[in-house]
Amino acid sequence: MTSQPLFILPTDETLLRAGKLADGLAAARIDFALLQDNAMKFYLTGRVFAGWIAVNAAGRVHAFVRRPNNIGGDNVTAVRKPEEIPALLPAGFYSGAKPSVGFEFATLSVSDFNRLKSLFPEAEAKDATAAVRTARAVKTPLEIAEIRRSGRLQTEVYRNIPSLFHAGMTDIELQIEIERALRLKGCLGQFRIHGDSMELFMANIICGDNADSPTPYDFAMGGSGLHPSLPVGADGTELRPGTTVMVDANGNFTGYMTDMTRTFAIGEVPPQALLAHNVSIEICEAVRRAARPGAKASALYELAHGIAAEAGLVHMFMGHRQQAGFVGHGLGIEINEAPVLAPRSRDVIEAGNVFAVEPKFVIPGVGAVGIENTYVVDEDETRCLTLAPEQLTRL
Amino acid sequence: MTSQPLFILPTDETLLRAGKLADGLAAARIDFALLQDNAMKFYLTGRVFAGWIAVNAAGRVHAFVRRPNNIGGDNVTAVRKPEEIPALLPAGFYSGAKPSVGFEFATLSVSDFNRLKSLFPEAEAKDATAAVRTARAVKTPLEIAEIRRSGRLQTEVYRNIPSLFHAGMTDIELQIEIERALRLKGCLGQFRIHGDSMELFMANIICGDNADSPTPYDFAMGGSGLHPSLPVGADGTELRPGTTVMVDANGNFTGYMTDMTRTFAIGEVPPQALLAHNVSIEICEAVRRAARPGAKASALYELAHGIAAEAGLVHMFMGHRQQAGFVGHGLGIEINEAPVLAPRSRDVIEAGNVFAVEPKFVIPGVGAVGIENTYVVDEDETRCLTLAPEQLTRL
Repeated sequence: MTSQPLFILPTDETLLRAGKLADGLAAARIDFALLQDNAMKFYLTGRVFAGWIAVNAAGRVHAFVRRPNNIGGDNVTAVRKPEEIPALLPAGFYSGAKPSVGFEFATLSVSDFNRLKSLFPEAEAKDATAAVRTARAVKTPLEIAEIRRSGRLQTEVYRNIPSLFHAGMTDIELQIEIERALRLKGCLGQFRIHGDSMELFMANIICGDNADSPTPYDFAMGGSGLHPSLPVGADGTELRPGTTVMVDANGNFTGYMTDMTRTFAIGEVPPQALLAHNVSIEICEAVRRAARPGAKASALYELAHGIAAEAGLVHMFMGHRQQAGFVGHGLGIEINEAPVLAPRSRDVIEAGNVFAVEPKFVIPGVGAVGIENTYVVDEDETRCLTLAPEQLTRL
Repeated sequence: MTSQPLFILPTDETLLRAGKLADGLAAARIDFALLQDNAMKFYLTGRVFAGWIAVNAAGRVHAFVRRPNNIGGDNVTAVRKPEEIPALLPAGFYSGAKPSVGFEFATLSVSDFNRLKSLFPEAEAKDATAAVRTARAVKTPLEIAEIRRSGRLQTEVYRNIPSLFHAGMTDIELQIEIERALRLKGCLGQFRIHGDSMELFMANIICGDNADSPTPYDFAMGGSGLHPSLPVGADGTELRPGTTVMVDANGNFTGYMTDMTRTFAIGEVPPQALLAHNVSIEICEAVRRAARPGAKASALYELAHGIAAEAGLVHMFMGHRQQAGFVGHGLGIEINEAPVLAPRSRDVIEAGNVFAVEPKFVIPGVGAVGIENTYVVDEDETRCLTLAPEQLTRL
């Protein structure tokens, strides 16, 4: 069978990303990390494969591939099981008889950790989660290009949302048409999320009182969902005049996501809804201007919260019966990356960060209002990548 | 705010499920298990919530809820963080100063394990994965009713697949119409899978030579996918005459899944494709009849493999350039449950098992053929729950 190269990223791109990770490993005194998470394999090679990828503190990379059986190339070894790895690590990959080996504690299961750790019985097993999180938080120019492309495609679909609506629809019927439009535009569907605190299928679309239904998940907004096995989002509510429908739908077109929310009014809605929506737009713009390198992510949260408080909307900010404790989050390969815009966040904004800001309000009896945009911290300015019209649009 | 009961399953159903789990805990000398996985919280309560659920070796259950903030009731305590749990466990939940506490090593991350384990510094931390797997493998009558309902709804959509096809379509265009039809019928979309060896969005739909593209994932069939970040399934291949299109699409309508594959011929296909398709139907029926309580899951694999070999199709069985090492798998809340029908499986069929059988063949130059059905091992007979027509249907 024809063998294809495992590494489909340009070599200097892989080295750039591995170098960023290596800085974190060196700081944590980890000799090398052995990574299993699909997000990290995609990050370092440009594709998902079954197997493991090792990165040492000097930024050297070696992959061990279990499947598929048609990829290989330099710095790649085929294996059937992880027990083969220690003998196959390249000479000089680490020094000393007692290396310190990093694993991604936040994503690796205890079972897999126990198996991988036992491959290096003399080693000290350390947590490489912080090194991974820090490396991924600052995107490379190539990553930003992928995110930009997702943003353009997601924006094209969002511009057409009004044409997908017809009177008498339910929230889920509108969602299904939006899902189809996204898919026809090339949306991959998959939402990569780490951890089990969030699950979602394609979109959170909430209308009317369903916006005030608390969810178990750590999303900004709730909704009952269609079934208690996936309790978030659309619940079959009819889109009635006098209510709003908030659309927060999947922007994964490139393996890298953008996150965008827009809100639509069904017929006439109370003035308070329009007011709160405009405060959300105002908060996004204020955060965008303030989110320059060196800014504290916690201060950006306080800025957003302060504008909401000044408008007298703090009891509806980020929910009403249940409120979320953040106003923005980093994203890229996964929807929950660094930096986190929350009161106790220790993240500091850097050039290359990509994050979403989603100041949302729940107006009892009406629904949710507000917008969400994805921003990139460029050297000269922090720019919006999700450019669909922001105003509360009447359907 | 109105408080709703956390436990939405009938009480005796929760006790039945907890009792099955407790048998496994007692056998493993685990005093109680502290479970975090969303699948297990849904299994024991009927809904997903943020928090933890404790089950002791006598089958007693107590839940600790972090979110949402509007659920409570008997045997439920609201908590902000897991550190509150030890003081809140009911009196007599375990005895002795040095309990043995079970965690689901296969699903719990190392980070969360370290945090939870430290709550019980005197305890021995044990793996409760086998107890969970064994309990979930034998479905209760209520679970089987939910799976039956998914099978009925999935079947209704599958019967309409021919009407969704038009000449000149690509595989992904057909998939998008099937996704929409499933969603309009009530499909929840989400595929619950444990571990990171599989990722999928809604369906694996493969046509022509794309059926012979190896995937990294542990699915029965491959396909390149639309993007290397999700390398499985449809890749944009046009549905051309002389090829087949295999449809393996999401059957999650109730939090419990059925798994069904049907294959369609575009125009005229070579006789070998029809022959192999009929061998697949024959294998399914043979496995159904043999899959009675006491049968070894490994023997069911050998039975399937033997029929394929006798038909001279073993080099195309479960793939061609890359072959999968199983022919069936248990399913329910997740797509990868016990029993596993594979050569080295130690599972033994029991009444109440629900499993899918998917003997598939890849015919080079034509595509994949074969079917997949979901079966339940009833007391008197093993029955099929996925009743769409099995023949190779011409589009």
